[in-house]
Amino acid sequence: MPATGNPIIRTAIIGYGNLGRSVERIIADQPDMELAAVFSRRAEVGSAAPTLPADAVAEHAADIDVAFICLGSATDVPERAPELARLVTTVDTYDNHGDLPRHRAAMDAAARETGHLAMVGTGWDPGLFSLNRVLADAILPENSQMTFWGPGLSQGHSDAVRRIDGVIRAVQYTRPRPEAIERVRAGEAAGVDAASAHLRHCYVVADPADQERIREEIVTMPGYFAGYETIVDFIDEATFDAEHAGMPHGGRVLTRGRAGDSHHVVEFGLQLERNPDFTAAAQVAYGRAAHRLRAAGEVGARTVLEVPPHLLSATDLDELIAAKL
Amino acid sequence: MPATGNPIIRTAIIGYGNLGRSVERIIADQPDMELAAVFSRRAEVGSAAPTLPADAVAEHAADIDVAFICLGSATDVPERAPELARLVTTVDTYDNHGDLPRHRAAMDAAARETGHLAMVGTGWDPGLFSLNRVLADAILPENSQMTFWGPGLSQGHSDAVRRIDGVIRAVQYTRPRPEAIERVRAGEAAGVDAASAHLRHCYVVADPADQERIREEIVTMPGYFAGYETIVDFIDEATFDAEHAGMPHGGRVLTRGRAGDSHHVVEFGLQLERNPDFTAAAQVAYGRAAHRLRAAGEVGARTVLEVPPHLLSATDLDELIAAKL
Repeated sequence: MPATGNPIIRTAIIGYGNLGRSVERIIADQPDMELAAVFSRRAEVGSAAPTLPADAVAEHAADIDVAFICLGSATDVPERAPELARLVTTVDTYDNHGDLPRHRAAMDAAARETGHLAMVGTGWDPGLFSLNRVLADAILPENSQMTFWGPGLSQGHSDAVRRIDGVIRAVQYTRPRPEAIERVRAGEAAGVDAASAHLRHCYVVADPADQERIREEIVTMPGYFAGYETIVDFIDEATFDAEHAGMPHGGRVLTRGRAGDSHHVVEFGLQLERNPDFTAAAQVAYGRAAHRLRAAGEVGARTVLEVPPHLLSATDLDELIAAKL
Repeated sequence: MPATGNPIIRTAIIGYGNLGRSVERIIADQPDMELAAVFSRRAEVGSAAPTLPADAVAEHAADIDVAFICLGSATDVPERAPELARLVTTVDTYDNHGDLPRHRAAMDAAARETGHLAMVGTGWDPGLFSLNRVLADAILPENSQMTFWGPGLSQGHSDAVRRIDGVIRAVQYTRPRPEAIERVRAGEAAGVDAASAHLRHCYVVADPADQERIREEIVTMPGYFAGYETIVDFIDEATFDAEHAGMPHGGRVLTRGRAGDSHHVVEFGLQLERNPDFTAAAQVAYGRAAHRLRAAGEVGARTVLEVPPHLLSATDLDELIAAKL
């Protein structure tokens, strides 16, 4: 127990891909958290904490304050997260925007059954970008608002492509069209929408016999690619390793709107050297908030829109007010 | 009462300068607010709502859900806001950062005496910028963080200069130094602080006999100018009217920090065509939140760091989650 008298938050990681590994690194930097276990389908994942079987969460739940769900959004989160929310307080980064209302309702019901809290859709989009969309829209209700993603690699979309039968390796890059950014800043956003403002570019390693079917499955995938201009390039594994190992990302939420007789631009931007590290950092901060809300007696699902911002910080409120207000 | 069943929030404006006038314009655009009265030391201010004497708030308090305090930060807010917080739920834009902890404590004690809520330090800085400083610092605790103001006119600082004896007209512009912005983005922020990253430039109309004393009072004013490079130019009234009638402003909060093994830049920026309009828009949105928190039984002082973001919006949470998450 630290000198402040706050108990250490006992955490677990469920799923140990890129995101889970980053969450472990981030937890190690927090003054008020420790990692109790990693749950994985694999017997040994290389974590410094004990690796336990994916189906053993129930028997260890009493020793876990917050579980970071680091499973894939395409199928694992919707299938497994509600059963986890019945066992422990959870934080996910589920990123299928269109499905978030359904996911939130499922997590709310599951968490309430057993008196846990389930923080859904953290990370940066959904997450910090959602928060900025709501703030700017609340202050300037008559607005043009656009979210631009990239240039960068999308984990959620890459994961969705990798789940397609026959895909050996895959990445997806999102690129904003610069002329669309300038149109929104200048107040000429009419006709600019997410699909026309971006390209989605996939690089895929697959057997030639599978390629046409894979291309078709990608470009028609609802919630991910349908409606977007999507380029699918098939490359060999050596090219993939040489050119697509990094995970940069970023983007911006741009809102131009009226207040009184004048117009204003609100812009929130991220430049991320390594997407899973930043996503994990946001997830871990919302994990602190989830723990504090649960400790205050709250249960059910919560989104980033419902969290008092100071609860994300390891620094206490009085000190934040003195240093940051 | 609107079709949604939500009662209309009955508001008042206390003080009718630039900010008070903007608040009236913004309230008129809200679907869930009406302006009951303006309280002013002047008999008639030109508002569409009744103008009532500044000392008549107590006798009308029962008809006011939220009062927007639009008095000057230099002396009026610290002197008068606590007595107002005893009478009604208040929202202020008090912008003396160093004095905010004291102000919050005074407002907390006053509001609790009579069961009201006092939202302190709204607007954009303090306000939205504070929120972004805390969010970015919570997610990337090992960081270089800098706030840049301008180029633009500072209401609070201009007001502070205008309260000096002998000042006839005055404005203050803040200008960031571009090389300081680039240093923070590049991770070379060591040695860059608020004072070295900005110039403060005042244009003042005053009798020549008063000018040296006024210059000295400005550059040594604690909490506003002391410690900054401050330029004071005395000009004539015709020049003032021709060149200093607009109120543009803006700025950015820039945070570069580490998560895991990688580095990331978080940036929140504003470009404001007319500062009091945007400040008022933020103040009014936090007024909605203040009313909702009070209606939920909360009392005492609150800062922007403590407010669940969806409470700012006239749109309900389920709809925000579907449209913005």
